[in-house]
Amino acid sequence: MIDCGEGAQLSFMRHRLSFRRLRHIFLTHLHGDHVFGLPGLIGTIALNGTGGDLTIHTFQDGAEQLSSIFKYFCRDTPFDIRFNIIKPEEKVILETKSLTVRTIPLDHRVPAVGYVFEEKAGDRHIRPDMTRFHEVPLYMMKRIKAGEDFIKPDGTVIPNDILTSPPSPPLSYAHISDTAYMKNLAAKIGPVSLLFHETTYLEEHKSLAAPRGHSTARQAAMVARDAGAKALLTGHYSSRYKDDSLFKKEALEIFPNVILNNEGLVTVIK
Amino acid sequence: MIDCGEGAQLSFMRHRLSFRRLRHIFLTHLHGDHVFGLPGLIGTIALNGTGGDLTIHTFQDGAEQLSSIFKYFCRDTPFDIRFNIIKPEEKVILETKSLTVRTIPLDHRVPAVGYVFEEKAGDRHIRPDMTRFHEVPLYMMKRIKAGEDFIKPDGTVIPNDILTSPPSPPLSYAHISDTAYMKNLAAKIGPVSLLFHETTYLEEHKSLAAPRGHSTARQAAMVARDAGAKALLTGHYSSRYKDDSLFKKEALEIFPNVILNNEGLVTVIK
Repeated sequence: MIDCGEGAQLSFMRHRLSFRRLRHIFLTHLHGDHVFGLPGLIGTIALNGTGGDLTIHTFQDGAEQLSSIFKYFCRDTPFDIRFNIIKPEEKVILETKSLTVRTIPLDHRVPAVGYVFEEKAGDRHIRPDMTRFHEVPLYMMKRIKAGEDFIKPDGTVIPNDILTSPPSPPLSYAHISDTAYMKNLAAKIGPVSLLFHETTYLEEHKSLAAPRGHSTARQAAMVARDAGAKALLTGHYSSRYKDDSLFKKEALEIFPNVILNNEGLVTVIK
Repeated sequence: MIDCGEGAQLSFMRHRLSFRRLRHIFLTHLHGDHVFGLPGLIGTIALNGTGGDLTIHTFQDGAEQLSSIFKYFCRDTPFDIRFNIIKPEEKVILETKSLTVRTIPLDHRVPAVGYVFEEKAGDRHIRPDMTRFHEVPLYMMKRIKAGEDFIKPDGTVIPNDILTSPPSPPLSYAHISDTAYMKNLAAKIGPVSLLFHETTYLEEHKSLAAPRGHSTARQAAMVARDAGAKALLTGHYSSRYKDDSLFKKEALEIFPNVILNNEGLVTVIK
């Protein structure tokens, strides 16, 4: 989960997501609209005993503030939360068997980071017709998937790329919010499969964006284009606009693949 | 506004209530489910500049905790909130021209108070036919409403109760949550027009109620009956029950006028 605005626990339930599967919450920055759902979410998880092993990634002072809120307002509900203290810097902050997560410092009114989630390259895919033809035994399959050649009992070497096809290209997702437009941001993000970049304003209010630490839809599209992202997801709209579709329209002038984001959107990263 | 659970600002907007008219928030106790909507509500009011002159009534440590949350998470939004520090005791904590508000200490797991809101007796109602007949001049009306007799130019005294009818009986509302059943509570509340008394449990789970600082629907009805309340409003249901109507059914066995409470209920105090 990335950030946790007020009412997040209700959204969680409405979309039938499982509290037990929630293992990591990545906070981008410590403004109320990004964290005020957290105390209630944690309280509900604690009360219902549906917690997994939960880590909140945030800055040192966020960890202190949030701990103090939990301790005071949920004082008679037992819970156990870990914090992973991050800083506004470029760094890999989490690495699992299949995924790395790294931070990118952003330009907002308070310290803020974006997150890039990158799958590690997976195994190569077995070509069953070929492994059958060359009589590769089952116990060898794991090594073949990992890229090893197969040596037949008679000494013949069957090169791996005859037995397998390349792994699926690893997918990646970047979450960039809140930030003013940053020229050097695209290079730090790289060619991700999907880029969420905040689009608080339209160009007509561009003069408000930078001083408030926000971006326009056009600026978000420039970052998507320059990063070589496959798709751009809009969001974090100022409530002054009544017609969200304008964000997509403006971004499309710069970048061809724009997904208009809204409450409850489910999108496949591909 | 009494208490402020998570999502209260959304309810506020959904029911088209005006932030500008919000002048007092009365907190009963400092558990998350009663206060986690407050930071977001205050933040939204500050951001939109729609704040009136807002006072939060709470305990000393609540004021400190909430101030610290506002200061940190809304650090670049200017706002101005007053706190009125209350204690878990019987006391009039607010008095206006037309209303008094008093606290009653409750029996919960943390310090908690109930609130009783009492209208002051209003002016007597002018009987226009009689004031016309006795030629009461306009400038006298305020004094006649306040109960004065009218002395005609010829010295004849017209008693006030000929010129007016009695004021409407003052209305009152008591809000009692969260609390275990308290035998001496009814006398402290008195014969209010409407009593909200928490009904977390049904009698079948009575053994859970007291140790957790909560009441059953039957116990709430006993308080309503013993206080001489005109009506009882249920609420604060445990999520274990699927059918809320059972709370009303159980309370009706003890007390005749029960209003089943639910999200969005509007009820007239009479």
